[in-house]
Amino acid sequence: MQLNVGIIGATGYAGAELTRIVLGHPQTAELHLSSVSFEGEAIETVYPNFLGNTKKIIGGLKKAEEVIEAADVVFASLPHGVGEDFAKTCVEKSKPFIDLSADFRFGADDRTFAAWYGKGYRYPELRRRSAYGLPELNRNAIRRLAASGAVIIGNPGCYPTAATLGAMPALARGLAGDGAVIVDAASGVTGGGREPARAYHYPECADNVSPYKVGCHRHTPEISRAFSGIRGAPCPVIFTPHLAPVNRGILATIYIPLADAPAFLPKEAAPRPPSKEIAAQAEALHAVYAEFYKDEPFVRVLPFGAAASTNRVRQSNYCDISVHVDQSGSTLIVASAIDNMVKGAAGQAVQNMNIIFGFEESAGLTAIPALF
Amino acid sequence: MQLNVGIIGATGYAGAELTRIVLGHPQTAELHLSSVSFEGEAIETVYPNFLGNTKKIIGGLKKAEEVIEAADVVFASLPHGVGEDFAKTCVEKSKPFIDLSADFRFGADDRTFAAWYGKGYRYPELRRRSAYGLPELNRNAIRRLAASGAVIIGNPGCYPTAATLGAMPALARGLAGDGAVIVDAASGVTGGGREPARAYHYPECADNVSPYKVGCHRHTPEISRAFSGIRGAPCPVIFTPHLAPVNRGILATIYIPLADAPAFLPKEAAPRPPSKEIAAQAEALHAVYAEFYKDEPFVRVLPFGAAASTNRVRQSNYCDISVHVDQSGSTLIVASAIDNMVKGAAGQAVQNMNIIFGFEESAGLTAIPALF
Amino acid sequence: MQLNVGIIGATGYAGAELTRIVLGHPQTAELHLSSVSFEGEAIETVYPNFLGNTKKIIGGLKKAEEVIEAADVVFASLPHGVGEDFAKTCVEKSKPFIDLSADFRFGADDRTFAAWYGKGYRYPELRRRSAYGLPELNRNAIRRLAASGAVIIGNPGCYPTAATLGAMPALARGLAGDGAVIVDAASGVTGGGREPARAYHYPECADNVSPYKVGCHRHTPEISRAFSGIRGAPCPVIFTPHLAPVNRGILATIYIPLADAPAFLPKEAAPRPPSKEIAAQAEALHAVYAEFYKDEPFVRVLPFGAAASTNRVRQSNYCDISVHVDQSGSTLIVASAIDNMVKGAAGQAVQNMNIIFGFEESAGLTAIPALF
Amino acid sequence: MQLNVGIIGATGYAGAELTRIVLGHPQTAELHLSSVSFEGEAIETVYPNFLGNTKKIIGGLKKAEEVIEAADVVFASLPHGVGEDFAKTCVEKSKPFIDLSADFRFGADDRTFAAWYGKGYRYPELRRRSAYGLPELNRNAIRRLAASGAVIIGNPGCYPTAATLGAMPALARGLAGDGAVIVDAASGVTGGGREPARAYHYPECADNVSPYKVGCHRHTPEISRAFSGIRGAPCPVIFTPHLAPVNRGILATIYIPLADAPAFLPKEAAPRPPSKEIAAQAEALHAVYAEFYKDEPFVRVLPFGAAASTNRVRQSNYCDISVHVDQSGSTLIVASAIDNMVKGAAGQAVQNMNIIFGFEESAGLTAIPALF
Repeated sequence: MQLNVGIIGATGYAGAELTRIVLGHPQTAELHLSSVSFEGEAIETVYPNFLGNTKKIIGGLKKAEEVIEAADVVFASLPHGVGEDFAKTCVEKSKPFIDLSADFRFGADDRTFAAWYGKGYRYPELRRRSAYGLPELNRNAIRRLAASGAVIIGNPGCYPTAATLGAMPALARGLAGDGAVIVDAASGVTGGGREPARAYHYPECADNVSPYKVGCHRHTPEISRAFSGIRGAPCPVIFTPHLAPVNRGILATIYIPLADAPAFLPKEAAPRPPSKEIAAQAEALHAVYAEFYKDEPFVRVLPFGAAASTNRVRQSNYCDISVHVDQSGSTLIVASAIDNMVKGAAGQAVQNMNIIFGFEESAGLTAIPALF
Repeated sequence: MQLNVGIIGATGYAGAELTRIVLGHPQTAELHLSSVSFEGEAIETVYPNFLGNTKKIIGGLKKAEEVIEAADVVFASLPHGVGEDFAKTCVEKSKPFIDLSADFRFGADDRTFAAWYGKGYRYPELRRRSAYGLPELNRNAIRRLAASGAVIIGNPGCYPTAATLGAMPALARGLAGDGAVIVDAASGVTGGGREPARAYHYPECADNVSPYKVGCHRHTPEISRAFSGIRGAPCPVIFTPHLAPVNRGILATIYIPLADAPAFLPKEAAPRPPSKEIAAQAEALHAVYAEFYKDEPFVRVLPFGAAASTNRVRQSNYCDISVHVDQSGSTLIVASAIDNMVKGAAGQAVQNMNIIFGFEESAGLTAIPALF
Repeated sequence: MQLNVGIIGATGYAGAELTRIVLGHPQTAELHLSSVSFEGEAIETVYPNFLGNTKKIIGGLKKAEEVIEAADVVFASLPHGVGEDFAKTCVEKSKPFIDLSADFRFGADDRTFAAWYGKGYRYPELRRRSAYGLPELNRNAIRRLAASGAVIIGNPGCYPTAATLGAMPALARGLAGDGAVIVDAASGVTGGGREPARAYHYPECADNVSPYKVGCHRHTPEISRAFSGIRGAPCPVIFTPHLAPVNRGILATIYIPLADAPAFLPKEAAPRPPSKEIAAQAEALHAVYAEFYKDEPFVRVLPFGAAASTNRVRQSNYCDISVHVDQSGSTLIVASAIDNMVKGAAGQAVQNMNIIFGFEESAGLTAIPALF
Repeated sequence: MQLNVGIIGATGYAGAELTRIVLGHPQTAELHLSSVSFEGEAIETVYPNFLGNTKKIIGGLKKAEEVIEAADVVFASLPHGVGEDFAKTCVEKSKPFIDLSADFRFGADDRTFAAWYGKGYRYPELRRRSAYGLPELNRNAIRRLAASGAVIIGNPGCYPTAATLGAMPALARGLAGDGAVIVDAASGVTGGGREPARAYHYPECADNVSPYKVGCHRHTPEISRAFSGIRGAPCPVIFTPHLAPVNRGILATIYIPLADAPAFLPKEAAPRPPSKEIAAQAEALHAVYAEFYKDEPFVRVLPFGAAASTNRVRQSNYCDISVHVDQSGSTLIVASAIDNMVKGAAGQAVQNMNIIFGFEESAGLTAIPALF
């Protein structure tokens, strides 16, 4: 089976990355691209890196409607709140719609979406056909939906992907205690998109690390929803994003209070180094993680003692996870690394496409990351 | 008064930075430098950036003993555990000794030092003449010690400087509740020193973010001691350092549970954006910080709404602090940015020298940071 | 046909890149790797990026002899001057030997090799079976050699690849005048290899541009030989390499005096902007280049007016070329960009393998570069 | 003598750098700043790095006219072609006007200026009071002008500064032969200014090297004019700028054909390594350079064998120069490194102010560069 693929919003960074991955996918035939800003132009005039690789692309950059018409499956990489009509059309035509915006990440919870994104759903009923597209969490739901007709994927945000994969085993296995989970994360600058802006101007973000939107980033409710769902009870989340001078990559460092931690009563002003018992506890937690993910094609629980690094997943769909505890044994510390443009956006979207069509889940996503 | 200054270990990065700052200090006369690795050579053959600026430097790189002999004040930038004999000599000669290693950061607490650094003190009695050299915390103690005879400064670690300045107002004003304080920090690569190593090899740390020594970094007990001292009760600390691809800078993001937070009982899977009440609470916390530091020459509490950035303190002795809360109002989040080589090492050491000799505290430290 | 591939010296950067590319090559079966430094270990302990991708790799890191025994084709990524014995063995066993060192880049010219590399050939007769492995220049010679028995490829240096592809059309079509051709080039830091060293220590090469080995880099005679061969007459070359803070990539800017330039007699102190005639001349030169390379799978002559950039070829086997002239029309200026680890080393080596075995020349080399 | 200083266009990068340097200058009293974009705001809201350092700054960002009124000396950091009226006012009021645009770099040569900048001079007569502000070339002319009344400084472009300092000894001492001098240079991204744009968007210029405006950059005629003036005869120049991923810095590699080079008749396809004679020739050329600049406070001719690097002049007013020859002895190769924002713009402007007012030439410019 060879699919004709449509990408609405192909000239943003996530759209360009989708284009790159879909072009290399062995089960895609034609590729139809839309862009409001560059309608009529060739993709390689906007992205010269594509020169010589455009044989599958049919025509220049088109209107979204033409893309939907020509495609068997439609990806949308648009700003939040503008793609629902395209989703509706796809549902009516029974074409899978894989949405990289936040519009379909909150299921029926219109209230939370409206509170954070400023307006409610236009077509709430579409959520009956939508699933949150984190395959490691939701693979079966996606398959069921696809088997029964139209399907819309709310492709997860980049930070929520790293955070949820990092916390899932602890939350699902009941290791996490009652307190808030803290997600402290750094993102590469491609996360800010293609449009030049002061915050992404080379001289001001090179050689700089800085937090942003502290206490108010829109990915907070998405992370919290995912955590609560996995745990089966409300899970408070504190999330702080940072900008780091790398092109690609998210490194999330996640602090999860342990349910069965020894009562944490420090009697001295300064702690001791981790004891043998603490080291053994860490190794046991690592084993839980390794077991949990042992069949996942894209989650690599690193050997005990290693630490997740963004450069080892660059340009791949992997999520690398390392498992640690603090010196007192009170808190599980998980480092989770993804490429924000691949597992955090375009690669995961293609993984969802593979699930919907029953392809090998790693089809088109087999690129091996280079270390440098 | 014009001092003759000695620097033992002048060819490491912190030593070179000390050299740079002391050369530009208006109250220094001669500069005497030692180096084991480059004895007999000129500093500008090791650091060509100094070409043309060595008039104050007397002779080539010498032995430590010669440096002590010639100097009125001695800085030591040596590995941990090798400088106590130099300290002893300086005390005997009543020459202030400002030590950038960890040897004098733990006061009388030999046990904690031994547990983390692998061996105890050779001359425990020297700690009667030593002070932890964080001026904003300990200025008066340093002055008293200097007024009464010999003085040894245990110049703080880079991470502990950023963390302690970031948490001090909350801890000192009783805002912090009982739980652990989490310090999640990123450092530039100069923190790893001058010796080439795989972890600092350009192709493997460029374009990469990664944590290291999770749950077992030696700065943990130093941070915990400082926090506990300020609070007046043991303060558990969880500290995770990361390496980021910047040359200079530490950004510490600090999570402090608030003592009088509203009971944290989430009833919903996903939070709401911060309410007006939460925003007002954040502003009130910011006011506490601004008041606390209003007379400090090197701590800048940024305007409410801004976020600390490492590039705005680069090559300066500033610590920039921004104050935030999470969306639920449970947790104070402070971002604290320093230049790890200046406020985190050499600049702070010179600030301590200024205090000891009764100079203007900012003498030699007036460089204005550039944004780029 | 599925090949068993051997890589001698698999843990250097070029060896690791070869491993990555060969693992993804559709016509490779087993992969056998050798390493002196890590014998007995698994490649993924040295390069964790390979985790989960090692199915084709047979056993751990072995001895070179074992690798040769098991392989149908052998790549060697070794220091200069140490691989001739392996080459000899391979010739005796009629196994193609693709050598990434300089040992086989100078053909019969033992004198030039000895003058620059410090010792002569051990087995000069091996050069009767060797070819300089720049496919765009030498494809047919490689094929003929392969068809007639044993073949050794002297895989070109990274700078010579960028320089020769950039100058070839002008030299081959007789456009170049008599003077020296100047090749001014910048390389990414991976060009320095995997071993940590001061010059590649992050804090000293980040945020820095600097030339090195000016007037005495070993790639000078290799470039000069290639240029002279193409032109059919000795071609003096001046070559200056620089180190730039990028991971991968070479950008060579090449100044070729034009044979039929208008007599260059400036009468004024300052030039005028390029006239219409000069612009037309530039466009004509661009047309020569576009025509020359129109059937090459890996050389992209960029549209007239664009400029070659290293980021648009990153992780690909492309060489991007842009064509310009100076404002007076006297000098052709060509910018040539490659990924030094791919077209400048491992990718080109695999391209040579494809030619030897009659595979599609781009087999295993179809990765589309991303822009970021 | 304490000056009141005015800066017109203080919020661009060069203006901000001027502000930083002037604030630290020991002979400045008040500082008056203008900005069209941020009129009425405080400079530290635009550049938070200035927080706590604004005591000398009088009021907020003003109109240019107010700045001129209040100042004893006026710097203008404006786009080309818009500052002549301010210059005229300053001349009429006998206030030195130091212009960082190109408007006064071409002296009486209105034709060249008009050809490259699109329009001629509004007040040609102002050029009778203007000097090209490269102190190492023109110090005496500047002094004479200042002594005789009004003075306008055409502060040199960043590339022309690096190029001219690099070529001056060879041109002045008659070492250069007849051919074109090639200036191949790389600049940091601050050279593009403060306004966000695609070319300076972090994800597209990080990890990238690329030439731009090949054969048509406006600094070409400025370089050529300077070279011709020094040589005393027209000097053809070929200039190629590149963008490199560094914040600050220009590295110019300059190829100067030697007048008395041995006849350049290669008889072999590949050159030999440099002979002892060539090495001696290089050392002799180095000696000419060292002698030429021996009294210059800001030009450092590096020890023979070293190579100029941008990181060793960062944030300083130095120009570092290294001297080399190609392997055949035909061509002098000079590497010249400056900080484009300091010696290439704001620092040089202050150096000119110092000359005009008879201050120590290095006043306010004594910052010692750090290596990292």
